Amino acid sequence: MNDSLNAFCRDSDAYLEGAPDGPLAGLTFAAKDIFDVAGHITGCGNPHWKATHPPAERNAWVVQQLVDAGAAMAGKTITDELTRGIFGENAHYGTPVNPRAPQRVPGGSSSGSASAVAGGLVDFALGSDTGGSVRVPASFCGLYGLRPTHGRIRRDGMLLQAPTYDTIGWFARDAATFARIAPHLLDSDSTGQRPTNLIIAADAFELAEPAVSSALLDAVASIKPLFDTVATLRLSPTSLEEWAGHQQILQSREAWESVCDWLDEVNPALSFEVSDRYVTARAVTDAQVATAQAGRDAIIARLNDVFATAPTVVCLPTTAGPAPPLAQALSARRRLRRRNSALTSIAGNTGRPQLSIPLTEIDGLPAGLSLMGNRGADEMLLALAQEIAAAPTTAQ
Amino acid sequence: MNDSLNAFCRDSDAYLEGAPDGPLAGLTFAAKDIFDVAGHITGCGNPHWKATHPPAERNAWVVQQLVDAGAAMAGKTITDELTRGIFGENAHYGTPVNPRAPQRVPGGSSSGSASAVAGGLVDFALGSDTGGSVRVPASFCGLYGLRPTHGRIRRDGMLLQAPTYDTIGWFARDAATFARIAPHLLDSDSTGQRPTNLIIAADAFELAEPAVSSALLDAVASIKPLFDTVATLRLSPTSLEEWAGHQQILQSREAWESVCDWLDEVNPALSFEVSDRYVTARAVTDAQVATAQAGRDAIIARLNDVFATAPTVVCLPTTAGPAPPLAQALSARRRLRRRNSALTSIAGNTGRPQLSIPLTEIDGLPAGLSLMGNRGADEMLLALAQEIAAAPTTAQ
Repeated sequence: MNDSLNAFCRDSDAYLEGAPDGPLAGLTFAAKDIFDVAGHITGCGNPHWKATHPPAERNAWVVQQLVDAGAAMAGKTITDELTRGIFGENAHYGTPVNPRAPQRVPGGSSSGSASAVAGGLVDFALGSDTGGSVRVPASFCGLYGLRPTHGRIRRDGMLLQAPTYDTIGWFARDAATFARIAPHLLDSDSTGQRPTNLIIAADAFELAEPAVSSALLDAVASIKPLFDTVATLRLSPTSLEEWAGHQQILQSREAWESVCDWLDEVNPALSFEVSDRYVTARAVTDAQVATAQAGRDAIIARLNDVFATAPTVVCLPTTAGPAPPLAQALSARRRLRRRNSALTSIAGNTGRPQLSIPLTEIDGLPAGLSLMGNRGADEMLLALAQEIAAAPTTAQ
Repeated sequence: MNDSLNAFCRDSDAYLEGAPDGPLAGLTFAAKDIFDVAGHITGCGNPHWKATHPPAERNAWVVQQLVDAGAAMAGKTITDELTRGIFGENAHYGTPVNPRAPQRVPGGSSSGSASAVAGGLVDFALGSDTGGSVRVPASFCGLYGLRPTHGRIRRDGMLLQAPTYDTIGWFARDAATFARIAPHLLDSDSTGQRPTNLIIAADAFELAEPAVSSALLDAVASIKPLFDTVATLRLSPTSLEEWAGHQQILQSREAWESVCDWLDEVNPALSFEVSDRYVTARAVTDAQVATAQAGRDAIIARLNDVFATAPTVVCLPTTAGPAPPLAQALSARRRLRRRNSALTSIAGNTGRPQLSIPLTEIDGLPAGLSLMGNRGADEMLLALAQEIAAAPTTAQ
């Protein structure tokens, strides 16, 4: 395996042959190094994690599904440590190259998976998405990337960060390949008809950089003919930042509970940024959690209203901007993370599927347009993405 | 150089010949890797610090003084990262062996210096002491170790952590060698007469483990004949823990200001424990600093009263117990650090000299007795330590 893109964890590469006659035979994939491969330690982006955990006894459910379906696994990819990050800069293992923007970050935490797909090393790759970790690198690297309906893909044999938010997603360079993977991973609870109603999330477009909003709205204009009705709507009666604040509290609490014992026992080396988030998470109070949970319930109710009438998709910018430069100061990254979280937490808080489509570029840098569907409507989003890709009016 | 004790930073060893006819000719020393040696990067116990700083242009003042006096420098020793720790377990470079208790920590942050001296690799070694980083490893490794009067040793060419607390100290195995170093490092402001009054700090002995207090009080009994008067006194009208709390606030603020820009720019990998302390330090408010500064002023006034009459030394346990086991959980370490800080912050807050003497063992584990003097009385403490070592009643 060519690892010239630094997308792979060189010391834990895990190769698996695909079943020879499966429907995915001929495809190669990589998996973020939070998915178990039997006999290998799942490193989770941190050397002390790797040093304090035994090799996995069996393959993660998703890995086994793909191999059984004929895809060959080419290796495990670098992740932001413990999946805590959306930029893809790992303080221990380095930053996988963003092949579409080499002076920029690839996005994270599924950084190596996005890098490997965008660089053409594999056909598709597995990632996870808790707070944007598939959608953000998909946007930054110019890929298709899905955060599926929460709960539709089995999570056995992977690192959980914040279970009520954790999902498994994947990346591909084209819509057709992307869609081929879905039946092997998503459960059978597919719901929803071909959407006839497009909603443009006004408050989400306002959050993005003007150049990104403008370019993405041009792309939206080109796909409007695919719908019967198009409406512009503010999703949040208060602000998307407030909504993101609820996820921040709830995800922090869950993330702290996932690793607090290990932190106490091992005293691992973590990047200051990641430790900062854990120390901040430790200070979250039960009262804050209760308020945030009530806020999350209200968000779910609001989105149920938005999706209540005709079969609907909501479109929004995947990220507030294209990939930022490498090695920015933490203070700058913190501001940027907040803006992006305001976009990613809508699907996060409501467990809805969101597909990022590589529909535009700003000064040569990719930026994704997202389609968000009803719970269970993942396949509908994938089909729509193929329609969009085939439409003569959209530039791929 | 034999580095079998893992006391030395193997990738930055710095060797310097001593001036051939100097008064320290024939002695070898090591220096904590926070002291500059020309042409070498001062690593400060963290790989990202090392990667983001240039080689030093000249030797630290203390290093040059010792070399000019004839001592040969054998290498640089491991330190707790950025001097933040008192146990000596470096998450990146490992834990220098405690030759006196191999299953126990060596103490830190001047861990490698204490290890190298206790293991006989060098005759003496330089450390630094902000919150106990010479005194604690001296106690744990059974060595003489001095925190000098704040300001009496020039700090050019070293990492500062919290400047109003930072001092340079050293370790040796015997009192005579220990005293030989002093004139080459301490300025000429020596003050104080041979002490005639011994004060036993009752509240400090109450803080130590009963077995340690008991053994150290036996040692105190054996040195009482060296004094005209002996008194037992509570140092703090409130509690030593409260006094330590003032240092904790003030040291935290200063430590944060020392590295906050570097943390923001580099996002280094630090142990979770150290990041935790920085994140906590960042949250310290100006109001807390003002209260702590007033508290520190009151401590200084109180200690001035204690030392006001006859030439006095105060004795206290250096540490609350002998060296704890290796790799304890952070929660246990945090409790232990708090107890030890209550002992070390007395000299820390008042800038007084404190010499730890290896006067006792508990179940074979060393524990130091400390002598604290008036500001400027460092030489008096060293002379007293030689008297104690020579006294027939004390077991060395």
